[in-house]
Amino acid sequence: MMQEVTDFTIDSVMQNAVSAFDEYKKLPPVKRAAFLEAIADEIEKLRGQLVEIANEETNLPLARLNGELTRTTGQLKMFATLIKEGSWVEASIDRADNNRNPPKPDLRKMLVPLGSVIVFGASNFPFAFSTAGGDTASALASGCSVVVKGHPAHPKTSLAVFNAIQSAIKISSVPGYTVQHVEGSSNNIGEALVKHRLTKAVGFTGSFKGGTALVEYAHQRAIPIPVFAEMSSINPVVFYPDTLSKNAASLAAMFAASVTLGAGQFCTNPGILLGIKGEEFDTFLSLLGTEINKVLPQKMLHSGICTSYENSLAEMLDQKGLQVVAQSSSEAKEMEAAAVIASVSAKDFLSNEHFKEEVFGPYSLAVICDDKEQLIQCLQSLIGQLTSTIIATEKDLSDYADVIALQHTLAGRILLNNAPTGVEVCASMVHGGPYPATTDSRFTSVGTTAIKRWARPICLQNFNDDILPDALKNGNPLNILRLVNNVYTRDAV
Amino acid sequence: MMQEVTDFTIDSVMQNAVSAFDEYKKLPPVKRAAFLEAIADEIEKLRGQLVEIANEETNLPLARLNGELTRTTGQLKMFATLIKEGSWVEASIDRADNNRNPPKPDLRKMLVPLGSVIVFGASNFPFAFSTAGGDTASALASGCSVVVKGHPAHPKTSLAVFNAIQSAIKISSVPGYTVQHVEGSSNNIGEALVKHRLTKAVGFTGSFKGGTALVEYAHQRAIPIPVFAEMSSINPVVFYPDTLSKNAASLAAMFAASVTLGAGQFCTNPGILLGIKGEEFDTFLSLLGTEINKVLPQKMLHSGICTSYENSLAEMLDQKGLQVVAQSSSEAKEMEAAAVIASVSAKDFLSNEHFKEEVFGPYSLAVICDDKEQLIQCLQSLIGQLTSTIIATEKDLSDYADVIALQHTLAGRILLNNAPTGVEVCASMVHGGPYPATTDSRFTSVGTTAIKRWARPICLQNFNDDILPDALKNGNPLNILRLVNNVYTRDAV
Repeated sequence: MMQEVTDFTIDSVMQNAVSAFDEYKKLPPVKRAAFLEAIADEIEKLRGQLVEIANEETNLPLARLNGELTRTTGQLKMFATLIKEGSWVEASIDRADNNRNPPKPDLRKMLVPLGSVIVFGASNFPFAFSTAGGDTASALASGCSVVVKGHPAHPKTSLAVFNAIQSAIKISSVPGYTVQHVEGSSNNIGEALVKHRLTKAVGFTGSFKGGTALVEYAHQRAIPIPVFAEMSSINPVVFYPDTLSKNAASLAAMFAASVTLGAGQFCTNPGILLGIKGEEFDTFLSLLGTEINKVLPQKMLHSGICTSYENSLAEMLDQKGLQVVAQSSSEAKEMEAAAVIASVSAKDFLSNEHFKEEVFGPYSLAVICDDKEQLIQCLQSLIGQLTSTIIATEKDLSDYADVIALQHTLAGRILLNNAPTGVEVCASMVHGGPYPATTDSRFTSVGTTAIKRWARPICLQNFNDDILPDALKNGNPLNILRLVNNVYTRDAV
Repeated sequence: MMQEVTDFTIDSVMQNAVSAFDEYKKLPPVKRAAFLEAIADEIEKLRGQLVEIANEETNLPLARLNGELTRTTGQLKMFATLIKEGSWVEASIDRADNNRNPPKPDLRKMLVPLGSVIVFGASNFPFAFSTAGGDTASALASGCSVVVKGHPAHPKTSLAVFNAIQSAIKISSVPGYTVQHVEGSSNNIGEALVKHRLTKAVGFTGSFKGGTALVEYAHQRAIPIPVFAEMSSINPVVFYPDTLSKNAASLAAMFAASVTLGAGQFCTNPGILLGIKGEEFDTFLSLLGTEINKVLPQKMLHSGICTSYENSLAEMLDQKGLQVVAQSSSEAKEMEAAAVIASVSAKDFLSNEHFKEEVFGPYSLAVICDDKEQLIQCLQSLIGQLTSTIIATEKDLSDYADVIALQHTLAGRILLNNAPTGVEVCASMVHGGPYPATTDSRFTSVGTTAIKRWARPICLQNFNDDILPDALKNGNPLNILRLVNNVYTRDAV
């Protein structure tokens, strides 16, 4: 913890981070796993207190925060399990062949951690994407040391979680500076951390403006580093006619809940609802409107986000062609957001880039297309997204195969007849997508493969067995899955 | 083929590349594999002619070019085998759990190709890193369409190889524009290709200046794209005392050959030879000098590279503290490079950044350290490398464990008692390394995993089996290795 952050203190933080990394990376995976589990245990011990502090700082309801805390400890344990199993290092062995001309050397490859990394806490997930969140958990699992920049919107929560981490550091006997915590609301701190010569990578979840600023800092370095920023997405949903003719009521309920979940403060909030003009889409929008009327305004994370919602919503509602379909019938009190569904013709949508901007909150825009061609044009006009949702029957899938194919290219996660909110934490999750959804579509920030962001492969050529790392030794003492002479196996070589 | 390249033609090339991609990506892996094999066959048919043209354009000896052509067809076939096996797509399945609260959806993940990519031919590998080289082969294997920018130093070779690709396109019935070829020596063409909105990624092997220019273009785009540039490396080799006391003669022969192989025109050429002052290192350098004296000057790739070698060598030899250890005893004729070994004290090396610059050609600098501490300082002063070589006995490995550990952090490939030249094409190879060796240390440009540069993961949520891609279908019709509920298996689900 640091109250006054200067270039001098940043430098000593990063020096400490590197010293810790040099020791921490040498620990066997079981030790690192025990550390992750200890963090989970220490957080669990403080559950009541942490949830209360976070509730005070973020206005998120206790039930949601309890769920998010469970997700957070679950993530830590998931990465512990992953590294205890061990195959994530992608071990690969090509044995020597002295009979070949020229002789083939022995070559062995595995992933190793990048070094000391920076994790920026996110405002909308005070636990799961903050101090001990997914970025921290995956980076620690990989063997990196972590400097957390706590989010200024929940400083007490961040610090309380960091205290739990510090207890775990002591209990697990990992190096004292394996995780450090830096506070402060100035952008200069983030800039100094990203630009520091000892920083090797950056994890961030937040706004497009914030993410691109970090990318710019990283690009300005003498030695550029990767920035994994999850930035913005309007998560298009296409409602096809056949399903609307059959399931309009249940879809309206599903999407009213998805648009307003957590006051709309999710990266995967469905911001654009596309459909083809006609009775089916009209009926659906009318039912959706009825559901939205009933949703009570909810308190947002902090006043800045609430003001931003009000302003960007006002600006959106002011655009030519936009019509309000429905809004909460109750009035919003201080710091509360009232849900709004608006609609626009595809023609107007296509002629005004403003309609594609993210309004962070419980707002969604229905885009009414004249026909399939116009629907295709609308989808083609979109930039990279986290999710792309298909609401369709089998008949729709067949009638609109070309539109469906296009939907597959837009995002990291493609959903069929599910709402995009709710991001499952598992091996098959992709929480990522083409720019500007994230800065690097080849990685996910949720799920086990999030660990891959913090590692690089090294190849060891002509090493004797006794000096090889355990993952690459002939006997396969870690019993991991390896690619040996192009065959996947857990056998010894 | 295009003689006059304009923005208009670049635009139509990229439009064609996207149209081809949209069809090509849908082909089953066996079809793509057959295409790669057809390219290899068509190149093999033209072997005599291709080797002759390349010899004329690059001055590389026929034996080397024959070997490089075999490597090139071998790479194409290797990627064909990889995609026929199919597990490279990292398929992952997490099954639904309706008993959980909330219910867990069915989630399935796999890698999909990025789109239309640009491959820049390299001057020093007219076959293996050019028109049908490793970048093209891996990109085509992934399912991307490719636009090759032929290297202006070997235009006829590039075009002749492209003709072989065109025959393979016809034979395999893949879309006509799956591979396109753009010629021209102007940098504007490269800039226009990298900046074109339809370009999704870039592969490059060449100079630091060239690579960083491409990165800058990519960064200037509205939608940034990855640039995989392999740029420069001086490939440090540390000779430890015990091995020098025993193996000086054989090491001198090994490194005289490595420094001068292919007129020193390899990315992995050992440019810095570090050792600790003393009789052992003196003897080794003297033996190395005797070997270097005997090496005849060799013709370089083209006059530009030869002039650049002469100029950068002259500038290097002019630096304070540098001493020439040995050079070829025969004089270099036109376009030929004479081998040179120089030496410098670690003190001078550490005080002059110039000594760390790459001299592309048969030159290497011995750095004489007073002691272990100074050796560590020299290694710490180096930036990212492709290779880091340890020449040591077991006693050295034990006596110098801290220096060895440092050597592991410098590069993508760490060698023990091997010369760094000679890059094996296999699954365990890492031809890559921390910046500026490459722009992205997480990927390799040689070996099967080079395919990962051209793909991104997508997650399909709640899809019915009949509309899932083959790699993710319940029955596992491709019989690939998949991660199913966190267990690796080829079983159906």
